[in-house]
Amino acid sequence: MGHRPESEDCFLYTDHELRLRFRTAKGDVAAVTVIYGDPYWSLPDATGKVTYRYQTQAMTRIGSGETHDYWAVTLTAPFDRIQYVFAASGQDGTTTLFGDRGPREDSEAQRQELGNYFRVPYFHAIDRTRVPAWVSETVWYQIFPERFANGDSTNDPAGTKPWRPADHPGREDYYGGDLQGVLDHLDDLAALGVNGLYFCPVFKASSNHKYDTIDYFEIDPDFGDKALFAKVVAGAHERGMKVMLDAVFNHLGNQSPQWQDVLAKGKESRYVDWFHIRQWPLTPYRDPTKGEGDPQFDTFAFGPGMPKLNTANPEVQDYLLDIATYWLREFDIDAWRLDVANEVDHHFWRRFRQAVTAVKPDCYVLGEVWHSAQPWLNGDEFSGVMNYPFTQQIEDHFLTGKTDAATLEARLFDQLMLYRDQTNQAMLNMLDSHDTPRLLTVAGEDQDKALAALAFTFLQTGAPCIYYGTEMGMSGDNDPDDRKPMDWRKLNGPVWQAVHTLVAFRRAHAAVLGTGTTAYTVTATGLIQVTRQLAETTITGWFNTGEHPVALTAKPALAAGFQAGQLNPKGFVVTVH
Amino acid sequence: MGHRPESEDCFLYTDHELRLRFRTAKGDVAAVTVIYGDPYWSLPDATGKVTYRYQTQAMTRIGSGETHDYWAVTLTAPFDRIQYVFAASGQDGTTTLFGDRGPREDSEAQRQELGNYFRVPYFHAIDRTRVPAWVSETVWYQIFPERFANGDSTNDPAGTKPWRPADHPGREDYYGGDLQGVLDHLDDLAALGVNGLYFCPVFKASSNHKYDTIDYFEIDPDFGDKALFAKVVAGAHERGMKVMLDAVFNHLGNQSPQWQDVLAKGKESRYVDWFHIRQWPLTPYRDPTKGEGDPQFDTFAFGPGMPKLNTANPEVQDYLLDIATYWLREFDIDAWRLDVANEVDHHFWRRFRQAVTAVKPDCYVLGEVWHSAQPWLNGDEFSGVMNYPFTQQIEDHFLTGKTDAATLEARLFDQLMLYRDQTNQAMLNMLDSHDTPRLLTVAGEDQDKALAALAFTFLQTGAPCIYYGTEMGMSGDNDPDDRKPMDWRKLNGPVWQAVHTLVAFRRAHAAVLGTGTTAYTVTATGLIQVTRQLAETTITGWFNTGEHPVALTAKPALAAGFQAGQLNPKGFVVTVH
Repeated sequence: MGHRPESEDCFLYTDHELRLRFRTAKGDVAAVTVIYGDPYWSLPDATGKVTYRYQTQAMTRIGSGETHDYWAVTLTAPFDRIQYVFAASGQDGTTTLFGDRGPREDSEAQRQELGNYFRVPYFHAIDRTRVPAWVSETVWYQIFPERFANGDSTNDPAGTKPWRPADHPGREDYYGGDLQGVLDHLDDLAALGVNGLYFCPVFKASSNHKYDTIDYFEIDPDFGDKALFAKVVAGAHERGMKVMLDAVFNHLGNQSPQWQDVLAKGKESRYVDWFHIRQWPLTPYRDPTKGEGDPQFDTFAFGPGMPKLNTANPEVQDYLLDIATYWLREFDIDAWRLDVANEVDHHFWRRFRQAVTAVKPDCYVLGEVWHSAQPWLNGDEFSGVMNYPFTQQIEDHFLTGKTDAATLEARLFDQLMLYRDQTNQAMLNMLDSHDTPRLLTVAGEDQDKALAALAFTFLQTGAPCIYYGTEMGMSGDNDPDDRKPMDWRKLNGPVWQAVHTLVAFRRAHAAVLGTGTTAYTVTATGLIQVTRQLAETTITGWFNTGEHPVALTAKPALAAGFQAGQLNPKGFVVTVH
Repeated sequence: MGHRPESEDCFLYTDHELRLRFRTAKGDVAAVTVIYGDPYWSLPDATGKVTYRYQTQAMTRIGSGETHDYWAVTLTAPFDRIQYVFAASGQDGTTTLFGDRGPREDSEAQRQELGNYFRVPYFHAIDRTRVPAWVSETVWYQIFPERFANGDSTNDPAGTKPWRPADHPGREDYYGGDLQGVLDHLDDLAALGVNGLYFCPVFKASSNHKYDTIDYFEIDPDFGDKALFAKVVAGAHERGMKVMLDAVFNHLGNQSPQWQDVLAKGKESRYVDWFHIRQWPLTPYRDPTKGEGDPQFDTFAFGPGMPKLNTANPEVQDYLLDIATYWLREFDIDAWRLDVANEVDHHFWRRFRQAVTAVKPDCYVLGEVWHSAQPWLNGDEFSGVMNYPFTQQIEDHFLTGKTDAATLEARLFDQLMLYRDQTNQAMLNMLDSHDTPRLLTVAGEDQDKALAALAFTFLQTGAPCIYYGTEMGMSGDNDPDDRKPMDWRKLNGPVWQAVHTLVAFRRAHAAVLGTGTTAYTVTATGLIQVTRQLAETTITGWFNTGEHPVALTAKPALAAGFQAGQLNPKGFVVTVH
């Protein structure tokens, strides 16, 4: 049994609604009751004995993970404070109280022991984990600017290659993609239906990917300039699209003036405390994985190209916060995606969250964290993270068949139980990105499989994100092969139409799919069933990831591979009631 | 099995030492190994296949709670970043990997799956939970100023009663205790050996207990004035004693000018947003526990005397932070004890921590929280809390016999596992206070029992605190009976001598008792054994809480009830090796 106060197990969903979760070993427990009341509501009874006045409420088993069942309840408190303890009735008929000091035998005497109660001493709205309401209604589209569209050949870098979508780009190749290309295609993106644009870095940098920043206050000249960027933001906003930029604050590029100053002046540089320097001289860089000894300074991974910033230095903090607020204030962007966010300190991210929400209260803050991310998601740092651990489960079942349907569902539910409900709603769910092989490639070039996985992802809590080119049926292996020039010839083609339909469905049902509850089942016929519910509306999806057609009676609002009451392998059906 | 990254299960103990804990179901697991390495250390092997290079280290079973065994290890990382996964070998011979995405069968393939690893992406010193080093070397002494000593009869309130230690004080009684009384007895406190003075409120307030503040910038005239308080601080510091004041920031007294302004001017008062007002008019106050309907404003518990402050209001925050820094800056106090700290928001306490440590970096911040307190103890709010859930276990066994020795030890260890090691060292361990019945009364007036419990408490991690009068063998039931006038006639008496001996022992072994590891065992003969260890020194205590003498061979550094190799009931022996 498990419960952690003031965490994803115990959180204010709204200012006056407390949600509680409780974990029990899978299959062990038949029912759970929460016993609760105001911490100070003790009264003398007829005999004068002071008695604690509690209430009880049954909890709902909301789902099961690999090793646990999860129970939940929503409570309110008239005076905005509460204490509670769980009573778990085992399959064997015994009832155990599980409280703040561990398990106890259930008895009235133990219910009267106030030390057994967990506490929410006061419902503080200021401490509540909040996420921007618009995020759960958003379908994101990720743009890698160098490869999306070349709208202006006058800014093409020397050696720019011809725009051939079938190319396998090399690490150092340029194709001339730019912001004019994005501006030119805003109507195409609007037609696809997406309403959030997530840009990989656009600031002045050395490489084609621009993760090695030289100047965060400038648009890279390969991409355009600030006036053009302002047009892109305005054009997006006119079409109801939000704009998210990528902030690379873990490290600088080694061509940045700050690092160049350190290289030139050594210990005398005024930027010496901007980095994590362990030994002098700094060159030649020693890569320990090549047996060259210990590196002289901290970098991203190993290699001299991206020296790590010392974000504990207040001067560095102020510099980065200036950048963060500048693009919000001057260019009205709506969100920041934070690169390698897990390697930057929490102290800095708390300052960051305060700074950006002071300019734009509903700014979305998205961290790049590939592992479980609770420490960043308590309301004072990020709104959500790139949800790789969640979407990996979908890939493992739908695309590579590594796991069976029951394992998929258990692991997805375990992932959901890592975070507060509102946080799950603000996750970014992407099946691929500039950092992974493309969806279609992972699917073994099977477009039906890829679309089924995408459809399943679109039914989940968390905002879905399409990596540019998915709608064109593009393939690509790991970086840099996943960054091919966009295949515009496939615009309005069959894959585009299928993706467009998914986007339209998600947006038409944004409330239920964005904020409804989630339940998973494997049906008796082996279909994966996902049910989303909000108020009176229920959306149910069935997916056939097996090898044989399965009979199914349904009136689909959305379907693939469904004919004459048969759901074919790789097919899916979604209903709305 | 359980582990939570970046919590009490995974924390920097020093800037470059990471401590990990892992929980397994009691008795299930025979051995645990941690598998770990740098997150980026993957290399091609001879065949060109990229392989993650990990190391392994055995974990130590450090103790057992009621339902879990706890395993621990300390790791370092050459580049200050690490990833890790646990391999738990069951009593049945199978080994399970337990990682970031749940349990997996142990295999080289799973060890190569980087998604299985928990992460500490970077060792950020700025995020590390720090506690003031001096706290673990401190023996606190709690003073309730109105009842400690009357050093100046000219400031006695009207109706002051004669100083009779045998009195049972009424709620509204005054006895004339004051700061001159404290000043007069500083040498007695130094002789007792304590080196930290924890004062209940001294600011201007209405009641004898002063928890209903009128003016936080004034010493209550019943107690003296600022000049006198400065002398008390100086006198304490001269004697090597730290000074801790009690900050009542959850609520104001209803006689405060701010609340009186609200009562007088209603909605027009400039202080209307300083409180949590739900309905007008404010009087007469409605107590819901008396069936009078919903209260018009939030208060401490129920009752109109202590209206709750709205600490989300920046004006209130600034007001309270001014107070907090004023007494640090102008009077050089060393610590703040925070009354009803759990009911004030985290946002405020984070500002508080920043404000006080900006003035005094090693300021001790002690929260009053009676339940589990992880949310306040992550390094950015409190250093420690009043450790009632820990000391309650000692009472339940030593004093009231509610639990057996094995339960005591399991519950104590469970309590220790709630917090980081350095946090445990900064807890305040008191067996009684102005809010509880006195130790001797809980012990059924059995002084030997009381002293054994006190001795056991002095051997624990966490700074012990003596409530004034314990050393005089004073008894007293719940508030207000626990606030009798100090019985100075017992100075240097046998109880005083016994307490003095305990204090001297604790202080002589401050390093081991303050920062050493802790292990509990019930010996084959039924004694409670506690072992504290640091480097080469081991301190072991044996306590006989049974009903019969037990044979024991030991050369005691400290003992009671130990004669001719027999440890009598209520006796104890402590050795140092």
